[in-house]
Amino acid sequence: MSSPLRGVVAPILTPFNPDLTIATDLFVAHARRLLRGGCAGLAPFGTTGEALSVGIAERRATLDAMLAGGIDPGRLIPGTGLTDLPGTAELCRDAVDRGCAGVMVLPPFYYKAVPDDGLYGYYARLIDWVGRDGLRLYLYHIPQVAGVGLPVEVVARLAADFPGIVVGIKDSSGDWANTAALFAIEGLIVYPGSELPLLDALDLGGPGCISATANLNAGAIAEVVRRFDAGDRAGAAALHAAAGAFRRLVQDYGPIPAQKGLLALATGEERWTIVRPPLVAQPGDATRALAGRLKNELGVDLAALVGAEEPAATA
Amino acid sequence: MSSPLRGVVAPILTPFNPDLTIATDLFVAHARRLLRGGCAGLAPFGTTGEALSVGIAERRATLDAMLAGGIDPGRLIPGTGLTDLPGTAELCRDAVDRGCAGVMVLPPFYYKAVPDDGLYGYYARLIDWVGRDGLRLYLYHIPQVAGVGLPVEVVARLAADFPGIVVGIKDSSGDWANTAALFAIEGLIVYPGSELPLLDALDLGGPGCISATANLNAGAIAEVVRRFDAGDRAGAAALHAAAGAFRRLVQDYGPIPAQKGLLALATGEERWTIVRPPLVAQPGDATRALAGRLKNELGVDLAALVGAEEPAATA
Repeated sequence: MSSPLRGVVAPILTPFNPDLTIATDLFVAHARRLLRGGCAGLAPFGTTGEALSVGIAERRATLDAMLAGGIDPGRLIPGTGLTDLPGTAELCRDAVDRGCAGVMVLPPFYYKAVPDDGLYGYYARLIDWVGRDGLRLYLYHIPQVAGVGLPVEVVARLAADFPGIVVGIKDSSGDWANTAALFAIEGLIVYPGSELPLLDALDLGGPGCISATANLNAGAIAEVVRRFDAGDRAGAAALHAAAGAFRRLVQDYGPIPAQKGLLALATGEERWTIVRPPLVAQPGDATRALAGRLKNELGVDLAALVGAEEPAATA
Repeated sequence: MSSPLRGVVAPILTPFNPDLTIATDLFVAHARRLLRGGCAGLAPFGTTGEALSVGIAERRATLDAMLAGGIDPGRLIPGTGLTDLPGTAELCRDAVDRGCAGVMVLPPFYYKAVPDDGLYGYYARLIDWVGRDGLRLYLYHIPQVAGVGLPVEVVARLAADFPGIVVGIKDSSGDWANTAALFAIEGLIVYPGSELPLLDALDLGGPGCISATANLNAGAIAEVVRRFDAGDRAGAAALHAAAGAFRRLVQDYGPIPAQKGLLALATGEERWTIVRPPLVAQPGDATRALAGRLKNELGVDLAALVGAEEPAATA
């Protein structure tokens, strides 16, 4: 089993062109910027990446563009979970065959209140249908969005029955008691889906976090892990508090449209404001207000967060 | 605009083989039986058809098998709604190009609590992306499963802005106040997603209902509409009460596994018990208990419900 990506992993935002096709040029440039800026890895096609608004062929083409753009697949954990086995298996195979570090798989989320045996059975069949020894599967628990969660008992059964395949979980529930219970499962890699409990997770032996806010604030979050690893827990805690304040402020807004708006403002690239329906873009004045609060309340310099653009990053 | 299918439309169950591939032979035989048995039409790939557990290519192949099996596409309203525009548009085009009477489209159901403008924008973009004049779109409101509903105001806007394209809605909310509000929208075809409010819907000028229970009880439900149309409202009401009792009893069980179990029992075809995860098959003893209650409490003869098999119906 490969060792987990240690630090902060960004569920990368998916930029769109005005005709709503994926803006591959912006996507690859943003991915490079995030890896340069401190991300240990990227989780394309997560909730933050509007993955469930993106089609199967588009996901494949975007992943190929990332690899063609020089991004190491060993730093990628793409989301591959749909509501059906055939589509999910296809996306998983694509990722494994391209050498990705792992895949992140939602539970099937259309039917609600399904039995634990049904959830377990779904993943068991999926592993069979994917049919790849190289599969490294991260479960994805985000019940407040998906409407279907993964009970700790189901996670424990899957980890026990598929060692080396069901390797970890991203817990975006925001419920620390649940995250702590997952840490008690032997050998399971646990990423909280936010930087808020990052220090607690590091204390329990976790490798870091996967957080939406890493699209803008990766450097600060990564530094928390570096200081922790260097034994400077007090310094880590001070930086952690600042990163938490940043997150809370951005989360007050619609987190996906808000971060896209901030990226547009910081880079001057208007396409960053575009979301796919059913999401709605954040109006420019709301974005400017948020940027003002980030500066005035937290001293955040947006331009510094995105850094200098690569020469090749524009279309 | 074509006139709506009048009577009962069955959201046909999807049978699977032991390896979980679609049992196309059983599917086509069941479709023929339902149309012979009184269904005005079929809505393949609805919630009851485990549609969201079935892949895009599988849906296409199954639709083709139905047409090859002699089923009139003018009696089909397949479900085509996924969470993303490209996949949903592809399924809609497939159905339109095959001459289907319409398509039934869920709202994008991954992101929750999305703005009305986002829901409206999704369908507006979808109609554009489908790019077919022959598109006849039925909205699908089933908030208790999808987790995302279609507010009446959004339905009214879509019907007004896309006349002849957004032609109707299936309302499976079980909330009669909502269904009645939909009937007030000029020109909209409204199917309740159950036979329970069928007479009320007919009174308001509706064409019938689309009900899961039609997989077993289509003849009785269809007869309600025939008597109503013949002016025998008292006779219709008596049959309606019996059909309602049937539905309530079956709905006490997990409706999809229960009906599949009953079909297996009635036809002797064990494959009918199989469901895809995350659903779980109903144990045989529960099915036998349900069949006993149907017989003892309601006088239902299961074998009579499924009728004689066609010679070509077995694999």
